[in-house]
Amino acid sequence: MYIALDAMGGDYAPNSTVKGAIEFAKEYKIGVYLVGDEKVLKKLLRKYRGEGLPIEVINAEDVIEMDEPPSVAFRKKRKSSMHIAGRLVKEGKAQAFVSAGNTGAAMAVAKFIIGSSQGIERPGIAVAFPTKRNKPTVLIDVGANVDSRPRHLVYFAVMGHTYVKEILKSSKFPKVGILSVGEEEGKGNELVKDTYPLLKMTKLNFVGNAEGRDIFTGEFDVIVCDGFVGNVVLKASESLGMVILDMIKDEVKKSIITKIGAVLIYPAIKRFKKKADYAEYGGAPLLGINGTCIITHGRADAKAIKNALRVATEFVQTNFNEKLYDNIRELLPEELKEELV
Amino acid sequence: MYIALDAMGGDYAPNSTVKGAIEFAKEYKIGVYLVGDEKVLKKLLRKYRGEGLPIEVINAEDVIEMDEPPSVAFRKKRKSSMHIAGRLVKEGKAQAFVSAGNTGAAMAVAKFIIGSSQGIERPGIAVAFPTKRNKPTVLIDVGANVDSRPRHLVYFAVMGHTYVKEILKSSKFPKVGILSVGEEEGKGNELVKDTYPLLKMTKLNFVGNAEGRDIFTGEFDVIVCDGFVGNVVLKASESLGMVILDMIKDEVKKSIITKIGAVLIYPAIKRFKKKADYAEYGGAPLLGINGTCIITHGRADAKAIKNALRVATEFVQTNFNEKLYDNIRELLPEELKEELV
Repeated sequence: MYIALDAMGGDYAPNSTVKGAIEFAKEYKIGVYLVGDEKVLKKLLRKYRGEGLPIEVINAEDVIEMDEPPSVAFRKKRKSSMHIAGRLVKEGKAQAFVSAGNTGAAMAVAKFIIGSSQGIERPGIAVAFPTKRNKPTVLIDVGANVDSRPRHLVYFAVMGHTYVKEILKSSKFPKVGILSVGEEEGKGNELVKDTYPLLKMTKLNFVGNAEGRDIFTGEFDVIVCDGFVGNVVLKASESLGMVILDMIKDEVKKSIITKIGAVLIYPAIKRFKKKADYAEYGGAPLLGINGTCIITHGRADAKAIKNALRVATEFVQTNFNEKLYDNIRELLPEELKEELV
Repeated sequence: MYIALDAMGGDYAPNSTVKGAIEFAKEYKIGVYLVGDEKVLKKLLRKYRGEGLPIEVINAEDVIEMDEPPSVAFRKKRKSSMHIAGRLVKEGKAQAFVSAGNTGAAMAVAKFIIGSSQGIERPGIAVAFPTKRNKPTVLIDVGANVDSRPRHLVYFAVMGHTYVKEILKSSKFPKVGILSVGEEEGKGNELVKDTYPLLKMTKLNFVGNAEGRDIFTGEFDVIVCDGFVGNVVLKASESLGMVILDMIKDEVKKSIITKIGAVLIYPAIKRFKKKADYAEYGGAPLLGINGTCIITHGRADAKAIKNALRVATEFVQTNFNEKLYDNIRELLPEELKEELV
């Protein structure tokens, strides 16, 4: 088994990606294709003592920049690390694709090079949000699509369900909700109102509308939404978390007493940050594609890259895509799976 | 001038509302109609020494509960404090309506009893979010509407612009953005793509797409969005703020050192909470109605009620609605104001 890692993607790449791959290969004895500038990568591999591990460097002359439009990755820059990493999966040489680079481009590579799973019209990105309870809530879709239709949300629900069962290893039958503006049935926009009855027809544990606040309470295991609202909520939440800590820091600086307090309290903040960091869950999988694709944060460090590679492995080893098909067959009524083979 | 206060609305009402009204009337010498259970309110007025102030109790036999559907407020419970408070504005006896009760019901009262401003199809709720910089960002709409159309968002932009200029007293020409999933023009869902060119046609300082993260950076003064996504973001943000503080608290409890740190750091946390509390801005105004309507948080205490009454006063005293019309006339191109008189 091999994982194709876009070794040039991410704010701290290629240091973070090479280190992460080495740590991963050491611990799990699973192969990694490091895709990127051969010269640089080989030098780093030597520097971080990565010899003798199942890590193979695949040369890629080009890099997708963080601000380039997604289409560049699959149309123009065919010699980019991202494009070549995606192609390794498409050609069956690798079983999974991991990138901390330009999210839109990584998604485009997954959708258009690796391809959607048969019968699944729209792949969705799942993110596990930390919650008050000791388990995350998965929000899907957080940006693979905008203007989704009701049947797409139903498929996102099954993807989220399967992710919680197989990868987050929930022993319970996941509670699924749909993101809306009120708890009661009938509240919401047209998309919610049209999707609600479809979700009720499934054998999922659909418990109704979830509100914005429910993303962090842990009441739900899976919350489905259109990628537009999911993406806005994801980015707003990340930003708010940082702004809150910054604002507290600014207040702390105003007196010596609070500064001392901050030093003493620091271990707790560090533990909190670890818990709250969704990189701990190994990044965000793009579900419903014909392979495994993990998109991790641009700020991913070596540990986050290692986590992403570990989660990618779990997707492959649990045969996630087969489980997803099983669930689609089992949980959806006939009329909702007509396009599936 | 009189403000009609739904004295029974809110988690801490009627204590919070009576106290808030007394503090407000003392400081600003402006009249308040306390609408609700006459016996209870008169007793509280005596208890908190509210005699001799321009506060008049108006009896209302009924109360809208927090979980009742909005329609109850204007159709069924015509003797509720909210309905009667709304009617006082409609009849011109009061100039503004303030409630900390059921948000949906308060909105329904404003829309259907007080009524939309002429030519404004959809009122919008504005919320001032605290940001990293020392000025808030106004998000509009956060839930008065779902499935908005492009022209509604253009009107929200003018409402937000006017709110920032007249009530938040910005000396600069407000920077307006539209909430989307990427910075570049062309990114977004259908609504964003259709609204973008319309906003460009206006004389607003429209600077393009804003992302979820921009709500808290202070880059924009006004960000417009459909009420569905705005409501989800508002509720998610409120919840995340609390969850973050709770999670840190849990970590703090784990050792005596961090507990001591927490005691020392407390003044900074308190200052932060004050800054971050959007009740400081006096709650959320519903803009575009034929009067003034301030909806404040269910958790509003006396101080938040006083703030809401103060902001309501500012709306009346600055002739907000006239300024809004002036701006619509001045900033929108002819084809976008055809329905205005």
